[in-house]
Formats: sequence, C-alpha cells, structure tokens
Amino acid sequence: MPDEDNLITRITRSVPSLTGTKGKRVGVELGIGDDALVLRPGSEKRWVVTTDAFIEDVHFWAHRHPADSVGYKGLARATSDLAAMGATPQFFLLTLALPKARTGLWLDKLLAGMGRAARELGLKLSGGDTTQAAAVSMSFTVIGEIAPGKAVARSGARPGDILYVSGALGRAQLGLELMRRGLDKDRRFRRLLRAHLYPKVQIKLGAWLAGQGVASAMMDLSDGLSSDLGRLCAASQVGARLWAAQIPCARHPEKVSPQLRGKSTQPLMMALHGGDDYELLFTVPRRMVGKLNAAPGFSDLHAIGQIQRGKTVSLVGKDGTEHALPALGWDSFREK
Amino acid sequence: MPDEDNLITRITRSVPSLTGTKGKRVGVELGIGDDALVLRPGSEKRWVVTTDAFIEDVHFWAHRHPADSVGYKGLARATSDLAAMGATPQFFLLTLALPKARTGLWLDKLLAGMGRAARELGLKLSGGDTTQAAAVSMSFTVIGEIAPGKAVARSGARPGDILYVSGALGRAQLGLELMRRGLDKDRRFRRLLRAHLYPKVQIKLGAWLAGQGVASAMMDLSDGLSSDLGRLCAASQVGARLWAAQIPCARHPEKVSPQLRGKSTQPLMMALHGGDDYELLFTVPRRMVGKLNAAPGFSDLHAIGQIQRGKTVSLVGKDGTEHALPALGWDSFREK
Repeated sequence: MPDEDNLITRITRSVPSLTGTKGKRVGVELGIGDDALVLRPGSEKRWVVTTDAFIEDVHFWAHRHPADSVGYKGLARATSDLAAMGATPQFFLLTLALPKARTGLWLDKLLAGMGRAARELGLKLSGGDTTQAAAVSMSFTVIGEIAPGKAVARSGARPGDILYVSGALGRAQLGLELMRRGLDKDRRFRRLLRAHLYPKVQIKLGAWLAGQGVASAMMDLSDGLSSDLGRLCAASQVGARLWAAQIPCARHPEKVSPQLRGKSTQPLMMALHGGDDYELLFTVPRRMVGKLNAAPGFSDLHAIGQIQRGKTVSLVGKDGTEHALPALGWDSFREK
Repeated sequence: MPDEDNLITRITRSVPSLTGTKGKRVGVELGIGDDALVLRPGSEKRWVVTTDAFIEDVHFWAHRHPADSVGYKGLARATSDLAAMGATPQFFLLTLALPKARTGLWLDKLLAGMGRAARELGLKLSGGDTTQAAAVSMSFTVIGEIAPGKAVARSGARPGDILYVSGALGRAQLGLELMRRGLDKDRRFRRLLRAHLYPKVQIKLGAWLAGQGVASAMMDLSDGLSSDLGRLCAASQVGARLWAAQIPCARHPEKVSPQLRGKSTQPLMMALHGGDDYELLFTVPRRMVGKLNAAPGFSDLHAIGQIQRGKTVSLVGKDGTEHALPALGWDSFREK
C-alpha cells in the first residue's frame, strides 16, 4: 500500500472524520475515501463555505511553534470565517503538504491539535489531499450551515449603528512578540501565549447575533482592527469613528513591560493593528442595543465606536482629538 | 488600500467570479467579498465537494512550466474529482500563495489559464484566500451538483463487471518526459505536451455515466492506472484482471523514440504507471455494456479488463501469461 494511503489512515484516526461507510449522518451521502464528498442539504438550511491557507514561515514557524498549536490554530482560524457569518460549523476538508521529516511525531502532534480543535468546533473531517513538499502548508475548507436569510454580511452597517468587539484586542500579537523575543519558554509567560497559539473562535456569539437579527454587519478580526474595520466600512459604503478610550486592549503584565518597549507594542497600537485575535467585529442598530444583554459572553462585549456617513475611519483619542486611522494591520504582500 | 485587496480585484477580473452583489445566480446567497460563501441549495440536488493542492516543485516547476498551464491544470485536475463522481461543476474557491516576484506578468498568465479552465468547466470563483509565501502553492476547492442517488462511488464494482477507460493512457507522462529531456521547446513536439500541460477533464462522460446509471464504480486516473485501480478494487473489496493488449497506450512518434529508450518510458509502462492523465476509470455490469454505445466520446472508450473475486490486481500479458500488478503510480511520499 502506498505511503499516502497510510498517511490518510493516520489522519482519520486522529481527527474526527466522516469515513465512507461508517460516517453516515444527516446531510452526508458519501464521506472520506472516494473522489469527493457528497452532501445532502436540507432545503431549510443554507450552506456556508470558506477556505484558508496556513503556511510555514508565513503563518507559523514549524521549528518553533508547538506542532499541536499549528494544527489547532490552522483549523480554528479558518472556522472563524463561519463564526463571522453566524454559521454553525459542520464539515471540513484539508490539503496537507509535508516534508518527509515532519511525517513522524511532529505530524502526530499536529493531528492531535487539529483533532482537539475539530471536537471543540463540532467539525468532522470529510475529505482532502496529502502530498510531500519542501515546506509545511495546509489549506482548510470549512462548511457550515445557517437558516435562510440569517447570514450576516459585511455590507449591512448603516450610519448611527454602534460598533462592537467581542473581547480584548492585541492578545495574539502580545503572544507573538514574546515568541519573537525568545520569552515563550519562560513559564511565567505561558498563559500569555495562549491567544496566539490556540485562538478561541466565537461560534456561539456569532450564531446568536445572526439568529436574533441583532447585528447589521459582522466580520472576524484576523488582520487587525484598523485593516478589517476598513473592509467592513468599504463593503457597507460608510465610515466609522472609533473611541480609543473604549477599545479593550490586552494588558501587558508588569513583568513583561520592560521587554515590550517601543511604539508598535503599546497596548493601543497592538489592539488597533495586531492580527490573529479572531474576535468578532459587528455593528448593531441603536434600537437593538438593548437586546445585547442576552448575548452569550455579554460581559466581554465592548462598544468601541459608531458608524457614520462618508468613507473615513477615524480614531478619537483619549484627549478628544480625532485623526484618520490608517489600515496598518497584517498584509503579507505589504510587510516584506 | 492594502495590496492583498488589489490582488483579489485582479483575480476576480481575470477569472469568472461571483462577486458579492453582482454575482447573484441560482444557488448563491452571497459570493466573493465577505467572510464566506453562502449557498442556497435546492433540495432536489446533492452537493459534491473536493479539494486538491497544486504546489511548486511538487506538481509543477514555476520556472519551466508555462504560467497559464499552471493555472489551467491546477483547476482542471481538482475538477476531475467531480467528473469522477458524475457531478456538474458549479463553484470553486482558491487559496493562492505567491512569492512577490511572481505577482506581475507571471500571475496575469496564471490567472488567464485559470480563467480559461473555469470557462471550459463552467466554474465560477466564489471565495478564497491570498498570501505571500516563498514558493507558489495553490489549493482548489471545487463544488458541483448531482441528482440524488446518482453519484458514482469507487465502491460499487462487482465480480464480472467490465473495466473501462475513457482514452489513451500515458500521454501526460510522455509530455513530462519530453520536458525532463529539455525537448519542450522543440516545435515538433509541442502537440505532445498538451496532455501534460492542459489536461481535458471528462465532465460530460462522467455526468452521462452517472445519470444513466451505467457505471457501477468510477474514479479519475490521477496517480496512474496501477495505483488507482488498486484503490478502486480495495474500496469495492474485489480484484481485477487487466488485459495488456487492450490498454490504449499513448504512442511515441518515431522522431521521439530515440530520446525515450528505457523500460520506464515504454508505452505500456507509461500507461500502467504514469500519472496525470485524468481519464475516467469505470466498471460496467455486463448487462449494461450495450448501453455504452450512446455515451459521449464512445469511440474513445476501451474495455481493458474485468473485475474478479479476491484482492489481486493482475495483468494478462500479450503472450497470455498473468502476473500480479504492483501499484507503481505516483506517490509523492514514496518517490523522493
């Protein structure tokens, strides 16, 4: 039997999977082990599909990031796009390219992390493709479902809507900065690495906001607030005013502060421009704001600004001055 | 505007695409430009989903293969998995990782080839992800549809069924061998490169075989007959006997023969073990064989063997001797 077939067996044993005959469940006619996945959709639901690459030396360092975090985060960040629509995750497909040297224990750990994410997110692996390559690269296609007309697009924000974020921002970049400075082995900082290594995806909140019709526009924060808010505003043909004092920023514990001097690592800068947080950014019409009290994780929601006419995204400083906010979040084509 | 957004605009201009508001068509609630694609399935259809990676130095050489062939073939070979189920292609999602040096004219040509394939295959780009990376890598997720119960799995072959292939085998490897020998610039051989660079996908035939219920099992030949037939037999829990004299082999024109001496490049060897042909391999119960006359491209169909009990895949030589056939097709994990 060729090695590729053995590899597929290892993957389907480690990660919750829909195999051809065993995996029958609602919505599936044919799972792993054939040329393609066959889905049996109910007409009362919509299918939501997204795809995301996760590549060595772009999104992670294979020799530095724990292998289980690579598997966990790769799947989690792809699934975050479903949370951003309000969809409930169901299936995923994986393309996995690996150097031969990473097909042993490293792969076992990668699959363990991916399996944990799949269980937490309610996902079953349902198809894919494996190949040997010089560097690790993965691509995740994630499929979810949602009731008709409930998906929340980026384009529905209207002037006057209040802008919310689902949790503290800059936490993932804080973890990354600690790794960059070689502080990730320091046990005191381990907790601070979690948001960077094992991001939590806001599935429940996204589904609630969509199901209740509370959010007029929604997206997940993957590249950083300044870049992603610009995209939401462009899609909605509106501008926005952010209130710096209201933005929940990841705090630097005092013991870390000396290592993180410099403008780009100030808490507000990391909250505005840091990527990888996977919190939800959403807008709520003023008459709906009262409903938010019943949202899952309500205490973590923060009103950080307001949608306005025009095209400008501006930041109102703690001193009341207002400046245009440049989109300085992560862009792999600009950074290098 | 960040460069990534510009890149997405270039892609959607070159490749037939479903953009957010313009691209409304049956089955689509939300297209490109949001966090995910939202599909509105009709309950009278099944959705068929597949994913496939296409990576520099594994599947193609970015500095040697024409860029338009990289785009064309990447999409075609992924779509071949839908042909193998009998499905009709509808949408695709793309993850595209590129070095900065390949974001100029090379990318334009890549997108032109991908656009041509999309038009020929009836596909619309509906989502994806772009990133900068050290090497070119792509992943295609292709979605098609098929009537309930019509998808043809690999697992339906029964002893006595006749084994068919949809066209000459080894043609893609012949093109690859010419490239390996630096003969791809020779105008006399240009026609022989086509199967390697721009593979045709058997959408019509696959859909006909599925729709008519003529094929009991089906798959596409991507890794080579010896490996892929082994997979079909394993899925069906049967064996097979191939008749060497009946296998349609790509012919070497005489002017090429001197360059292709050696056992591995004999026409029968390339037909048995060469990858990338994307012809359909399918089985037909004997009582159904007469129906095949009405198949599209009937004159290219060849009966090459028969399904039998057991697990053995064997080859009956032109001299009548029978030997077990090892699976020596392409396996990226074995080759290197």
